[in-house]
Amino acid sequence: MKPVTISTLLFFCKMFYPVSTLDNGIGNSPLLGWTTGERYPCLTDCINYPDDCISEHLIRTVADMLTLSSFQEAGYQHIIIGDCWMDKMRDERDRLRADRNRFPSGMANLSSYLHGKNLKLGLYMDLGAKTCGGFPGSLNRYDLDAETLASWKVDVVVAGACGLTSYIDINKAYPDFGSQLNRTGVQMTYVCEWPFILNKKGGGQANYTAVAKTCNYFRISDPVKTTELLTQTVQNYNGYWYLYKDVVGPGSYIDLDQLVVGTSSLSHDQEKFQLSFWAIVSSPLLVSCDMTQLNSRSKRLLLNEKVIRINQDSLGFVGRQKLSKELVTIWTKPILPEGSFAVALLNTNIAGLPSQTSFQLSSLDISGSARYNVTEVFSGDYHGVFKPWHYFNCEVEPSGALLFQFIAF
Amino acid sequence: MKPVTISTLLFFCKMFYPVSTLDNGIGNSPLLGWTTGERYPCLTDCINYPDDCISEHLIRTVADMLTLSSFQEAGYQHIIIGDCWMDKMRDERDRLRADRNRFPSGMANLSSYLHGKNLKLGLYMDLGAKTCGGFPGSLNRYDLDAETLASWKVDVVVAGACGLTSYIDINKAYPDFGSQLNRTGVQMTYVCEWPFILNKKGGGQANYTAVAKTCNYFRISDPVKTTELLTQTVQNYNGYWYLYKDVVGPGSYIDLDQLVVGTSSLSHDQEKFQLSFWAIVSSPLLVSCDMTQLNSRSKRLLLNEKVIRINQDSLGFVGRQKLSKELVTIWTKPILPEGSFAVALLNTNIAGLPSQTSFQLSSLDISGSARYNVTEVFSGDYHGVFKPWHYFNCEVEPSGALLFQFIAF
Repeated sequence: MKPVTISTLLFFCKMFYPVSTLDNGIGNSPLLGWTTGERYPCLTDCINYPDDCISEHLIRTVADMLTLSSFQEAGYQHIIIGDCWMDKMRDERDRLRADRNRFPSGMANLSSYLHGKNLKLGLYMDLGAKTCGGFPGSLNRYDLDAETLASWKVDVVVAGACGLTSYIDINKAYPDFGSQLNRTGVQMTYVCEWPFILNKKGGGQANYTAVAKTCNYFRISDPVKTTELLTQTVQNYNGYWYLYKDVVGPGSYIDLDQLVVGTSSLSHDQEKFQLSFWAIVSSPLLVSCDMTQLNSRSKRLLLNEKVIRINQDSLGFVGRQKLSKELVTIWTKPILPEGSFAVALLNTNIAGLPSQTSFQLSSLDISGSARYNVTEVFSGDYHGVFKPWHYFNCEVEPSGALLFQFIAF
Repeated sequence: MKPVTISTLLFFCKMFYPVSTLDNGIGNSPLLGWTTGERYPCLTDCINYPDDCISEHLIRTVADMLTLSSFQEAGYQHIIIGDCWMDKMRDERDRLRADRNRFPSGMANLSSYLHGKNLKLGLYMDLGAKTCGGFPGSLNRYDLDAETLASWKVDVVVAGACGLTSYIDINKAYPDFGSQLNRTGVQMTYVCEWPFILNKKGGGQANYTAVAKTCNYFRISDPVKTTELLTQTVQNYNGYWYLYKDVVGPGSYIDLDQLVVGTSSLSHDQEKFQLSFWAIVSSPLLVSCDMTQLNSRSKRLLLNEKVIRINQDSLGFVGRQKLSKELVTIWTKPILPEGSFAVALLNTNIAGLPSQTSFQLSSLDISGSARYNVTEVFSGDYHGVFKPWHYFNCEVEPSGALLFQFIAF
């Protein structure tokens, strides 16, 4: 395994990521952790739902699960609290505060609890007058709210815009709030729902150059709950690739929203599909599941260190579709060691036989090295040595995926 | 456990199943077994797909898997070969024959091989000029083809009507071919796609009285491949329940088509949903999966003896929806011992928290006994003794299901 020289890295970076991504020194590898997300919607009734309401108790439980199980060791460190953590009223100095019944220790304390465990805290907020769940929005208080978040030592800020409707407002709000975050002097990762919300509200496609200059991560798609939505996400990503291909990379990644691995939503093969795609396009891996009920097969997928390594690869490339063979699309992403690639095969055929797929390595532009050691990361199966002129053959389960390391040597 | 008296059974039967169901002495409990189905579509290329093409080799492998694993012991006995087993040409005496390359021993031999293992053979055929896959249809040869199937000692005949387009033809063809099957004197279970095909071709809803007099099983819905289709199947069944409620029962059951448990299609919770619904409405349990690759969780579901007992219950009732609580629908089916019920809770909410659901037993008309021992059949959890005036509480996973035995004592 050859070491990667700094000059090689710089060459790659210069080639692909000029100066367009956000340079706030963070977001160099995709977020990895847990989020309230789909599994824990806006539930504030802790009397009747003590374990499922959005509360300090839930977050501490998840933190303990991450550290006691093998998750933290595998790299899972972010805990994101979505909407509904706030008190309905700001405090006497007009600052945001956490709901006092559900977060009795306060957000600064919770943040410090997580930091004490080497975990990081993310909080959702809204750039309009109200959050999606009807809690206080930050409109007209970007400076104050950025300061409050900074004072709590929040690590990740997820900014929605439920409360904004005009396209002009949306396009202005994200950079404005971003400046206020920077002004605090506290490094906070800035996750924007900007392109997703703009599009959702009829504003068409965002200016991705502006987006990437502003945000460490930018949401482009609906949350995935079914295999149909998985297919749609892949197709949309590929369809609009030309819009963001020049601006994504370390400092500004695409966010496909949460993983639903370990919930009721996806079959085991569909879970592999979601993980493979998220890993190869360097989307955050933030799983929304009940950590106390995680089944062992899903857990093994989430803890697969090769999948995580592909996602977090420090070259910072973002995967793209290179080929499609009937309903199987083939994606590649350059990874370390130098000249190596991750290759994902995603099958959007939803039933029937596994799809038999062959491709020549060179047709994927896999030609950075004379030969590759090939391993499938879910099964761990070693497939042998392949050269650029070789054909590679595999069978992909319906609605499933294969994810390979092609390691140059 | 009280014994069920003949008079009780007769009372029930008379009450619910007058003389409208098919009285050919078979079909008294739903088919239970395996089918080529979605997992093994019309593949005739055995050179390139030796294990997946429709062939004698595949069927013998499945037969061996059923008998060597615990499936046969659990009751799985039917093996259904869908479209594409035929030779493109009839024989010199104009009879149907199996493809000679893929079924070198011939269908009579394969049938005898299965019978030697106490298994049963089902074959698909078409009442029009061609099958869906373009193989010989039986139009104008109902007598000859019925005789041929009888001569092979086929146990189950699945009749499609891809090759018929006029509603009048479809409505006439099924009874006509049924008479020819009866005329052979050989008992063959008659599975009709009649209502499904009629509706599919724009002919509206079938005359279910005629259907039930003709067919042991009648297909009413699309094959399920996704959780959306599962929800749709439940809603359609309930929406048209008034049409078939008076005609279903022993001798003529509704057929919801194959189970896809053990494939890539459904999550574990969704698999429970499919099994629960199929079991409670007494649909055939015919699984279309790769028996050589069956994962252990799906296998446990398929082999759950309580689920099978609910499906096969010899009282012969068919479940119906009694209540809906937001997105959870609650279904009941009277089962043995006398006064007992199966109860299924199906959650059509596809993400988020488990749904908390409560109902009073009496609101489901569960009042045949003073008290019930209640067990959830997937977990095996015993919930205690309940009386008709009691409220029963449970949490159902999103897109999942719970299936209970309420055993009178």
